[in-house]
Amino acid sequence: MAKHIQSLERAAAMLRLLAGGERRLGLSDIASALGLAKATAHGILRTLQHEGFVEQDPDSGRYQLGAELLRLGTTYLDVHELRARALVWTDDLARSGGEAVYLGVVHQHGVLIVHHVFRPDDSRQVLEVGAMQPMHSTALGKVLTALDPVAHAELVDAKREPFTAATVTELPDIEKVLEATRAQGYATDLEETWEGVASVAAPILDRHRLPVGAVGITGAVERVCRDGELRPELVAAVRDTARSVSRDLGAKPF
Amino acid sequence: MAKHIQSLERAAAMLRLLAGGERRLGLSDIASALGLAKATAHGILRTLQHEGFVEQDPDSGRYQLGAELLRLGTTYLDVHELRARALVWTDDLARSGGEAVYLGVVHQHGVLIVHHVFRPDDSRQVLEVGAMQPMHSTALGKVLTALDPVAHAELVDAKREPFTAATVTELPDIEKVLEATRAQGYATDLEETWEGVASVAAPILDRHRLPVGAVGITGAVERVCRDGELRPELVAAVRDTARSVSRDLGAKPF
Repeated sequence: MAKHIQSLERAAAMLRLLAGGERRLGLSDIASALGLAKATAHGILRTLQHEGFVEQDPDSGRYQLGAELLRLGTTYLDVHELRARALVWTDDLARSGGEAVYLGVVHQHGVLIVHHVFRPDDSRQVLEVGAMQPMHSTALGKVLTALDPVAHAELVDAKREPFTAATVTELPDIEKVLEATRAQGYATDLEETWEGVASVAAPILDRHRLPVGAVGITGAVERVCRDGELRPELVAAVRDTARSVSRDLGAKPF
Repeated sequence: MAKHIQSLERAAAMLRLLAGGERRLGLSDIASALGLAKATAHGILRTLQHEGFVEQDPDSGRYQLGAELLRLGTTYLDVHELRARALVWTDDLARSGGEAVYLGVVHQHGVLIVHHVFRPDDSRQVLEVGAMQPMHSTALGKVLTALDPVAHAELVDAKREPFTAATVTELPDIEKVLEATRAQGYATDLEETWEGVASVAAPILDRHRLPVGAVGITGAVERVCRDGELRPELVAAVRDTARSVSRDLGAKPF
């Protein structure tokens, strides 16, 4: 059984289509985007709608993602061992560092944020859990790419977008960054993804000492940097947190 | 085309199975729970795994929900018009009320929480976005059941669990509560779902004046109640917020 089930693959492609770009699409748009006959697309959409994965706007007739995906996605978080182990540690890191903390895992050529602790300053912030970050420019992405061979192989083929003037996009340059990351045990992002924003991240290892995720601190350069570098006490705090979560997951200390 | 696509229905049933109860299941458990041949179940699981909807633990071989569900579920929130319109209003409500605020919509015999603003007191709190609340005992659920005929029809057939000594479970009693809810325009939950916890919720209406969700405040009875009732200023603040969001959605004021 080498092949996958076609109707399932098509349904997944539809959900991905609705998750990107327009996000509210009519039947014809969906059918033509996926190269399907309208009747075929409609049959899949009706089933997806019946299962709650897709909703149809009664006024426009357009389709969008459904509530059942939110429920299932939240349940995914509930069974996420890394996230469960990291909850208290990341909370402590946000308090001591005074900045937002992110926990990420490799997912589909990027970093999926599975936990986000707000900067503890009562400002209005947008929760980034479930959002994707790029691999080649973020601190979380660099850490994961440096240590995860699959993520590394994907990066080589990926489109490496220049988000700012500081983004490193050429492969030989990225390889140097990843080598440095492996040597020093953490990675930084100095306005390479967002102007005015810097971060530092360190890897989380499981009991086999394999990388299962990364934890990092992100904030305005004016606060998290000094003399154009991440403040050493923040680097130390992030690495301490990564070590603690790794130990909690069963990783030996050496 | 009256029927739905069988392999899609089975895949959805598998995801629901992995979202409930055990949450980490072997192939045999999944096949027997759904009444499928092992080969059939395996084909669906392999495709779901390939699409990122299911993950397999390398050590135990057991299946669990996959990261793609989190990504898609978050995208669902991004296109959620009610949530987008309510973000600022709910934030203001949490600040002025000093308690946690929840925004919920009807989903599969319950209330799906689509937004949650933490109680603004720097205490450690668990994000409830994506979680389900019962219809018959919570303030959000009562409001939605009182105004949404589909939700009301479902409540009649639903299992109405007695969570505390105060939970109302008999249908005639619930109907009286719903009638009072319609008459007064809001609902309360006085330790009917969680011991020591009370809430008040009001409906959000769209431009057709149909209920599209509910917003509520939840907190410890010692703080949110006075003389065994929800504090009137909290009731007023919740109703003000519900009216504001409804207006923002295009509902006429009368």
